[in-house]
Amino acid sequence: MMSATVNSTMGVVGRWQPDSRGRLQEAALALLAERGFDQATAAEIAARAGLTERTFFRHFADKREVLFGGSDLLRERILTGVVTAPEESGPLDAVAAGLDAAAAMLGEFRRDLARQRQAVIAANSELRERELAKMADYAAGVAAALRQRGVGELQATIAAEAGMTVLRVALERWASGQDDRDLATIMQDSMAGLRAVASGA
Amino acid sequence: MMSATVNSTMGVVGRWQPDSRGRLQEAALALLAERGFDQATAAEIAARAGLTERTFFRHFADKREVLFGGSDLLRERILTGVVTAPEESGPLDAVAAGLDAAAAMLGEFRRDLARQRQAVIAANSELRERELAKMADYAAGVAAALRQRGVGELQATIAAEAGMTVLRVALERWASGQDDRDLATIMQDSMAGLRAVASGA
Repeated sequence: MMSATVNSTMGVVGRWQPDSRGRLQEAALALLAERGFDQATAAEIAARAGLTERTFFRHFADKREVLFGGSDLLRERILTGVVTAPEESGPLDAVAAGLDAAAAMLGEFRRDLARQRQAVIAANSELRERELAKMADYAAGVAAALRQRGVGELQATIAAEAGMTVLRVALERWASGQDDRDLATIMQDSMAGLRAVASGA
Repeated sequence: MMSATVNSTMGVVGRWQPDSRGRLQEAALALLAERGFDQATAAEIAARAGLTERTFFRHFADKREVLFGGSDLLRERILTGVVTAPEESGPLDAVAAGLDAAAAMLGEFRRDLARQRQAVIAANSELRERELAKMADYAAGVAAALRQRGVGELQATIAAEAGMTVLRVALERWASGQDDRDLATIMQDSMAGLRAVASGA
């Protein structure tokens, strides 16, 4: 996904490029973070990656997809985690299983690219709205999955929303470099923080 | 604020109108909910309230203020609740005190007008962004207040964010009519829901 390991022994061979997608993603995040989302074109991103605009559009429908391309897969991973949690797990344990799955997927990304992604989104109101809508959509999906597990309406909503809060807080700590442990550890620590405050510790 | 008790025995006496602000707010929410935020002008709102555009602008800087005029006061009430919670209260107890203060203020509004307000916001991406930014601002304020109470960084963030989730969920249940109890009760019940899920109940 965001990994951009370029084999330096491979030159440009015809039109084929090693890991074009990763290079485009890296170039896009750097350029969009520098200039702002609306101030860089797909052609400029491609040029920065040493590729053509056409190659950009073979990999991404638009600039937005560079930022949100993994959203559906992430949603699926989270929901699978919730659905497949042991039957005897409580609502927040099931949510925690979903978050562990999210950490496993997102923790593969390079932290510096995740930080650039956050910066690009934070600087643009339309992207912030999209990011928040994405989180709201995950929360609605998790709440539905919890209700299917027999959790009541209110508790399902609260557990799902609180879980997405933990995801957001953990991602921010990780991407910002505020906390240099790996994402899975930060996620579990954040979830433990939620349990601790809620139990009055 | 949103109360719109019009004394029907009072006619139009010169330029003076009883509770112009309340009538404008009611007219605005009805019209914006019907047509969408961008499809109604201040003049049309004023006309619906039987008032002039000039009167509208004496009460509100713009249409946005009809929806968000109480935000600063609400923020202040919440923060005061957190700050003045008994010294021995845990982080989430302090947040709960802030939410009780919010419920006391917001519970004064007419539920049907609160529902219209939610519908207007839900239908417009810019307004949704503003509403979410408002909540994020409350959360940041609450987290700062908790840190001043000696709560650690992570727990302060989690407790504040989880608290704003409870506020949002409770407001939605109340305004939607999904739950016909008063807002203070729904708020306390939602907070109890958070504690229950977090403790694994």
